[in-house]
Parts: sequence; structure tokens; C-alpha cells
Amino acid sequence: MTEVQGTVRDGFEPVRDEFAAVADGPAQLVAYWHGERVVDLWTGLDADSLLGAYSATKGAAHLVVALLVQEGVLDLEQRVRHYWPEFGSEGKHDLTLRELLAHRSGVVGTDEGFSAAELADDRIVAERLARQRPYWRPGTQFGYHALVMGALSGEVVRRATGQTVQRLFTERITDQYTVDFHFGLPAELESRFLTAQPATRQAEPPTANSLPGIAFDRHHPDGPEVWELPNLAAVRQLGTASFGGVASARGLAGMYAAAISSVDGATPLLKPETIAGLGQIQSIGHDVVLREHKAFTAGFHATGEYYPELGQGSFGHSGAGGQQAFADPRNGITYGYTRRQTPFPAAAASENAALISALYSALPGVRPAGSRA
Amino acid sequence: MTEVQGTVRDGFEPVRDEFAAVADGPAQLVAYWHGERVVDLWTGLDADSLLGAYSATKGAAHLVVALLVQEGVLDLEQRVRHYWPEFGSEGKHDLTLRELLAHRSGVVGTDEGFSAAELADDRIVAERLARQRPYWRPGTQFGYHALVMGALSGEVVRRATGQTVQRLFTERITDQYTVDFHFGLPAELESRFLTAQPATRQAEPPTANSLPGIAFDRHHPDGPEVWELPNLAAVRQLGTASFGGVASARGLAGMYAAAISSVDGATPLLKPETIAGLGQIQSIGHDVVLREHKAFTAGFHATGEYYPELGQGSFGHSGAGGQQAFADPRNGITYGYTRRQTPFPAAAASENAALISALYSALPGVRPAGSRA
Amino acid sequence: MTEVQGTVRDGFEPVRDEFAAVADGPAQLVAYWHGERVVDLWTGLDADSLLGAYSATKGAAHLVVALLVQEGVLDLEQRVRHYWPEFGSEGKHDLTLRELLAHRSGVVGTDEGFSAAELADDRIVAERLARQRPYWRPGTQFGYHALVMGALSGEVVRRATGQTVQRLFTERITDQYTVDFHFGLPAELESRFLTAQPATRQAEPPTANSLPGIAFDRHHPDGPEVWELPNLAAVRQLGTASFGGVASARGLAGMYAAAISSVDGATPLLKPETIAGLGQIQSIGHDVVLREHKAFTAGFHATGEYYPELGQGSFGHSGAGGQQAFADPRNGITYGYTRRQTPFPAAAASENAALISALYSALPGVRPAGSRA
Repeated sequence: MTEVQGTVRDGFEPVRDEFAAVADGPAQLVAYWHGERVVDLWTGLDADSLLGAYSATKGAAHLVVALLVQEGVLDLEQRVRHYWPEFGSEGKHDLTLRELLAHRSGVVGTDEGFSAAELADDRIVAERLARQRPYWRPGTQFGYHALVMGALSGEVVRRATGQTVQRLFTERITDQYTVDFHFGLPAELESRFLTAQPATRQAEPPTANSLPGIAFDRHHPDGPEVWELPNLAAVRQLGTASFGGVASARGLAGMYAAAISSVDGATPLLKPETIAGLGQIQSIGHDVVLREHKAFTAGFHATGEYYPELGQGSFGHSGAGGQQAFADPRNGITYGYTRRQTPFPAAAASENAALISALYSALPGVRPAGSRA
Repeated sequence: MTEVQGTVRDGFEPVRDEFAAVADGPAQLVAYWHGERVVDLWTGLDADSLLGAYSATKGAAHLVVALLVQEGVLDLEQRVRHYWPEFGSEGKHDLTLRELLAHRSGVVGTDEGFSAAELADDRIVAERLARQRPYWRPGTQFGYHALVMGALSGEVVRRATGQTVQRLFTERITDQYTVDFHFGLPAELESRFLTAQPATRQAEPPTANSLPGIAFDRHHPDGPEVWELPNLAAVRQLGTASFGGVASARGLAGMYAAAISSVDGATPLLKPETIAGLGQIQSIGHDVVLREHKAFTAGFHATGEYYPELGQGSFGHSGAGGQQAFADPRNGITYGYTRRQTPFPAAAASENAALISALYSALPGVRPAGSRA
Repeated sequence: MTEVQGTVRDGFEPVRDEFAAVADGPAQLVAYWHGERVVDLWTGLDADSLLGAYSATKGAAHLVVALLVQEGVLDLEQRVRHYWPEFGSEGKHDLTLRELLAHRSGVVGTDEGFSAAELADDRIVAERLARQRPYWRPGTQFGYHALVMGALSGEVVRRATGQTVQRLFTERITDQYTVDFHFGLPAELESRFLTAQPATRQAEPPTANSLPGIAFDRHHPDGPEVWELPNLAAVRQLGTASFGGVASARGLAGMYAAAISSVDGATPLLKPETIAGLGQIQSIGHDVVLREHKAFTAGFHATGEYYPELGQGSFGHSGAGGQQAFADPRNGITYGYTRRQTPFPAAAASENAALISALYSALPGVRPAGSRA
């Protein structure tokens, strides 16, 4: 049993017990229930330690996209080239923003690949991808755009608004809701950042020029390894939209809580109709990059497909460093889990399943704050 | 060996032997071959005992749809909202009737769920589904609309004709062809009905608010269990179009025989072109509700995908109480099997595979009636 | 260890060793690297022995299609019926040439099937398929059009150009580039042809009237067995476009080398943009005929999905007699392997995986001809 710090609301003690049982290194776990932070736990680091969010960053980027859709600035049925004309080349002219967000564009990388420095810079990535021929017929199938999804959607945001998705997230979410998610880490917060640690075992990397090899940049001599991405200063400082966010678990769960719930009396970022739209499955089945069964909504994982307790309409995004973060609007839950050491395999850590089960098992025994006994 | 009653045509004795070997409770088995009833067997009940047809009812409902398409009253390429304007909400405006029948609408249930009484009433179900946001992007994937398919297609029928699908089935099929399938059981036939019996084992039910949970109404406190549906008087009396039919095996095989063959000199209900259309695969692959490989035609199972002996172009529908029923136009076969006790798992009973193999193995040794020796 | 004849360029000796280790009967292996023939091996027959190419023939046919697309004679986005009006019946009116080439038409055979003599004649096959109702909704899914793909695409070529695909291949490729692939074997080359030998074991054939049964013509009393196809004189002489080519491994690898590389100073048949288009995945996932995971580009296998060493953008076509042939433009490799005896199972022989690994492992240690040390 690991020693655990922090608090849980009455009734959520089994979540603390489970966290103590499964944590095998520095980690944080936070959950909100109807806007109330009911689980706030950490071990092996501080409550406000900041870790790389890896692909959980995509969830942050796409909360901004959702907000812009809600405000009528973006339209999911529009073609991407409406916002970003250069993208409409090489057979990509008819792809819609909805399809782009559902990992259907087919430009999961480029023939040449990216150096670590290039990959950190969304503008460079977007410019190269615009010229790239898709690896599959756009729209007809889907595959995880692991390292470039945020550069693509971020460029749409930038073209439509004149501002980066990072700037908009900071202004509309981090600052507005005091969320501990940093999309472009300010120098003054670097002291809270803990460097990522590699997994004790490494999976066989995909072959360089295979589809997964291209998507994970294995074909470029200076392509980074995934686990080390948050340790690259440019990634943290720029807040690369696909994987460059830096957050505590409070930040991961908090951004989703801000999005769907009233936290401390604030108006939720998103309206019920927007939220319902985010949970709709857009791509499900064989992911041609990951070569396994996957399910995506418009910009998010259909997280309910991975954890049976979650209600239909849940959405979120995991990270290769072990992170899991999501909103379950039906049950009023948001969840954030992060850890310092990349697990094996490098994906949402296996302990999330046990933690989520413990959290959902606790729900029937407790009442929402303000409810009558 | 179970004691078996009934008759088989010369050459089909192995089917009787197989039925005696595999039947493990009250059951009926009937097969037609080029319009002749060549297998007519029962055990543990009477030849005219009536049992709940469960989802084999969908086959009855969609024979009516096929008839209306044949007559030009319905057009599979039309949008559903052409017939039913209220359906065209929440992103469902472009869904065609063909896609609806291929389980592609995405409204497999509603966020609130249905009480057993509500679920029995197709009108209530249809009205609620029209307002529901689809759980996936309509048309892009498919999943079994287990408890609501008939309410959806039935509402299209009602809007287009002013009559219910149950009424049309009774007038055009039950009465016209003297088929022992009752789509809304008359009070005077209740005495022939045998209540359904639960399986000896129950599968773990799907999580309440997961996609299968919603499709099987596990999220409503008064949602019925599937096995008990035929035991609900309202279901039998209304003949809920997704699961409320009541039939003997003679009725199950007989309705398909009436559809594709000349039985006792009658003109078949459907023309060869209509029949060929019904066998065309519309949805195949990962069923997002059942989470397994499935294949549907427009309103039917592509039954040939499940039993290798069947010819391409076969269509039918199984039932969760163990039923299997289909037409195989290429081989001139129709088949109906039903039993009183729900099997484990609750689906087409495993004995169907052996019975179908025995039936098809018998074919090469016999000649169609009227053929020259 | 089998005794092996032939030559390899310096650095490719491990490929010869592997060939000696895995060959279990008469076979040929050839590879080109940046237009240079670096592997040229054979055993148990002569270097210029000719064997049936089986479905590797489809690769030859579709190199012609690619050339015609490059020249603007064909347009992949056009409907098939634009070129071939009779094809636009039975719900096939909207199918595009691209979809046809991606095995999406649904006419994998006909209800009646073909005698061996009929199947050898692309014109007869095309005429029958034009009238056939597709077995699935055209465009919505894909399945291997095993015995008829070339008849379909060949008819498009014939309608658009007035010449057969066989004639065009001979004029534009066999003769132009001196490629030892014969699409319609001249009588004077018959002496080089070695008859095909059956496998030592036979797989259970698909049920006659199932989808694979129809696609492999098991429902016709005079339907041929796949292994014997090259032994039918009509197949060799007509060069049936789906399976009737006759070639040495030099021919298989050579036609792809002519297509993508400069061999002996010649201008490559295809331009880089055409080549890139041929490698784009068009259909991937559950093949409804083969009932397993498959990946097709427009007319070719997405060969890189089957061998991890290959670069994304590879394309080729295997044959049921054990053949494998492909181009890997990214690595500058083309490959041809053929054998006399059909392996078990009847598909690309398992030794290809080891041969390809040996070939690709050799690449890092050698330099392209003309490169500086």
C-alpha cells in the first residue's frame, strides 16, 4: 500500500483505498461530481506538481473547438478548406471539420517526418500536413492522428479566429475558471513541473515507414520518443496542441468540470446541447494506425466505450504517459488521473479501470450536495 | 432422446432425428421447401401452441415494409423525414429508409429509457425516438436497434399508409395466407399461448447507461427484462413491432413461405425482384450495440452469414427466446424454430445450427414435388 | 538447404541464404532496388521458366489502368457506367471507378456461376456481371472480387480505349520494357510454361452458395478449382485479367520496376504522383468475401499492411499459387516471387515473409549504384 495524501468527500473513501492499492509511483487523482471536487488525492509528489499531459492535451484543444462551435464561429459540417484553403489539396478538398476531428483526414504525418523541434511547432506541422497526400482516402476510414491532430484542428482555430488554440484555452478556460492546465507553460511555473520518466519496459517500436511508424514519427532520424515529449522545453513552452499541455490531475478533471458543471457557482463553459454533441460517436471500429478497436467522438475519445461504468455520451482523452481524463455528463462526473512514469504499455494506465470502478461504485451511496436526506 | 410428434416428408427423416436429439424442452420446428411443408415437428407442447416470437417479430414487420416497397408506397431511398417529419431532428434529417432498416439511425433508445408499459406501445416509443439525439452519427455505423426497430419502421408505415404495420400484416399476410403468426394476439387465441420461461442462467446485464444498456433499456428503473416480454399482456395484445408477435413455428416458417413461395397454389406475396432486394447485405461488420460481428439486410438478418449452408440472399430474423426464422430463396427453403424456454445465451438457440445442417443435408436426396423421377 | 541458382548483388547474400533455406520446390525470386536487379534466384526450374501468375495478374491489369489514369483517359472519380452504360443497372449506377477498383461493387460473381470456359473469357464475365444485382449495397463495404475483378476493370478499359487491357499491357509494358510477364501467352512461349501443381492439402472449400462460394465459383457444376486455372489453355491464351497472366519472377518484379524505377535508363512508366496515388489505402477492414482483415488500394493490395518492413505507399498483388509481387516506392524496391506448387493455404506463400525480411535487412548495408562511398 502506497502512502496517499489528500481528501475525499464522505462516501468516497473506497476511492482512496483503491488509489493507495494501485498507485506504483508518483501520481495524482481528482474527480468532480456535479461540480464538487469529491476526490483529491496524490502520492509521491505534491498536489500542485505539474506533469506532462501527453495526448490528454487534445481534450483541452477540443474543448476550445467545442466552445467555438457553440458560439457559431466554427461549423462542424464545413469543409476544412473553408477555413484553411491550403488544406484542400491532394484529395482533401471535401473533408469536413467533423471528419477531421474524428481522425478521418488520413494525414497522420508526412512522408519526410519531423524532427523533434519541428514537431513541437504546430504551425510547421500544419503547413507540412496541408501539402501531404493522405495515406488513405479521406473520410472513408479513421486512424489515430497521434502527434498531429492538434496541429490540424489548431490551425482551423487560428484561421477562423486569428488566435491560437493555446491562447484561447488560456483566456477562456485556464484564467476564467482557474484551471490548473497550462497550454504553453509560463516560465514562472516551471518550478512546479516534474520531468517525465520512461517506462521500465519499451514496446517494440512500429516499423519506420509503416502507417503507425509515420504517425509516431519513427521514420525521421531526429524524431522524438513519445515518453520524452514533455521533457522538451519547446513542447512545454509552446504547448504543442497534440501533446504539449502540462497539468495536475486537478487541472485535468477541472477543465472538464468547468466545461460541463457549475463549479463554485460559475456558469459551465458548454451548454447541454454542445455537451451532448461532444459525446456522439463519430468513428468506431478498426483504427488503421493503432490497428485495434477504437472509438472517437468529434475530437475526443468515446471514453464510455472503454470503461463500462461510464454513461453513454462520455468524452475525454487519455495520454501515453498513463493519463486518463474525461467528462461523464450523464452521471455528472469528471475525472483526471496523471502519473510521472510512463506505464507499459504507454497508454492510459491500467490502474484507471480499478479507480473508475471504485469511483462509480461509490456514487449510489452518496447524495449530491444540497439534496435532501 | 426427446419424444417428438409430427411429420416429415420422405427424405427428411434425419431432421426429425436431429430434432429429437437436440430439443431440450418444449419446442417446434417447421420447414417449407418450394412451398411444401416438409418438416412439421413439435415436442413438449402442441402443434398449435403459440409462443412469443421475440425479435423474429421484426421479420414480420419488415415483410410488410417489403410489400409496401414492392407496391411503390414506400421508397427505400427516401429520407425517413419525408414520411415522418418529426424524425428529422437532432442530426437525423438525411437518414434514408434503407439506412433506418439497416440499423444505422443511432437512436437505439432514449436518454431516459422506457417503462415496460411505454416500451409495449410503438407510438410512444416512436414519438420519443423522433426527438432523441442519435448516439452515433446517423448512417456512418450500425448497431442493433433491439427494442425499438419496429417502432421506427412501423411509424414510417403508419405515416405513409394511415394503418399500423400490425393491421397490415394481419390483413395482407395472416388472413390472406392463413399464417399462424399473430401480430396483436386476439383474446380468443390467448388459450393457445404458453408463457415464456426464463433461462436457467442469466448473462451479466449490460451496464445501465452504456450503449447496449440503453438499447436494452437497462437504465430505466421499470425497464422489462427481455425474456419476460411476451408474458406482458400489453406486448401480446398490441403486438409491439420489435418483439411482440406470437406464433407457432408453422407461423414463423409459414410467413416466409407465403412471402417467397407458392403455398397451396397461392401467389407469393413478394416478387422475385423484391425478394432479391431483401437479401442484399446493407450493414456488415462491428455492431456497435452488440459489440460483435453482425450482418443486416434492409430490416432482416443476413441469415446466410450465420449458417454456411444457406444460400446468399437469405434473410430472416432470430429471437432472443431462441427463435430462428428465415427464407432462403435460392434453395427454396423457409424455416421456423421456436421454443418455450429462453436459452443461454438469450439469442437464436445453438440447436438451430444442427437442425439447419440436417435440413440442408437432406435436400440432395429428395426431389421437389411434381418433378419427374 | 535447397540448391539455388542465380546471382545476388554484393550485400544481398543473406537473401540467397534465406531462399535456399525456405524454398521447398521449384521457385523463383527476383528483386529490384532503385531499378537495378539485385536478386535473381531460382531453384528446381530455369530462370526463364514461366508459371501461372494467378491473381498477381490483377497487378498487371491495374498497372494499365494506372497508366490510363495518368494519361487522362480514365478518371477514378467517374462512375463506371460513364464508360460502360450496361453496368449501371441493379443499383450499381453510382459506383465510381475508384470504388470498383477497391473491391466495392458487390458483384463478386453471379447467381448462376460460370463454367471454366466462361470464366476464362473476360467479355462473357463482364456481360453477366453487368446484369447482376450486387450482393451488398455497392460502395458501402468491400470484399475480394477474386475471379472477376479484372473482367470488370478490363471492360472499363476496353470501353474507354477500344483495346483490351491484355493488348495494352503487351504493347505498353511487355514489349516496351522487355518484361517477362505474358498477358495472353503466345504459342511460341508455351514451351517455357510449366503446369501448376496442386497443394498437398486442400482447405475445406467454401459452401457453394455462400458469398465466398459465389466469389470462388463453387456453385457452378463446371466451375474450376483455383489451383488448376493456369493449366487451362484458354486461361493462358486469353490471359484472363483476374488470374490468367503467365510470368517468371523476373516478369513479376520487372513489371513493377518498369512502373516505378528507371531500369537500364528507361523512363519509368508511371510518374511519382501516379505512384503515390496507387499506394493510398481505399478499403481496409473486414473483407466480406474472405471474412478476414484486408487492405486494398485502387486495384492493388496495400502490401505494406501485410509485411511490416515495407514502406507506406507500397502496392502489389499476391496470387493463390503462392506468388507475391509488389512495388515499394519509398524504399525503391520491387519484388517478385513465384513457385510451381500451390502452397497450403492457397495464398501468398508463407516463405515470402522471411524472404522479404532478409531483403529489407540487407538494405542498410549496401549503397545504391553510383552513390559515393
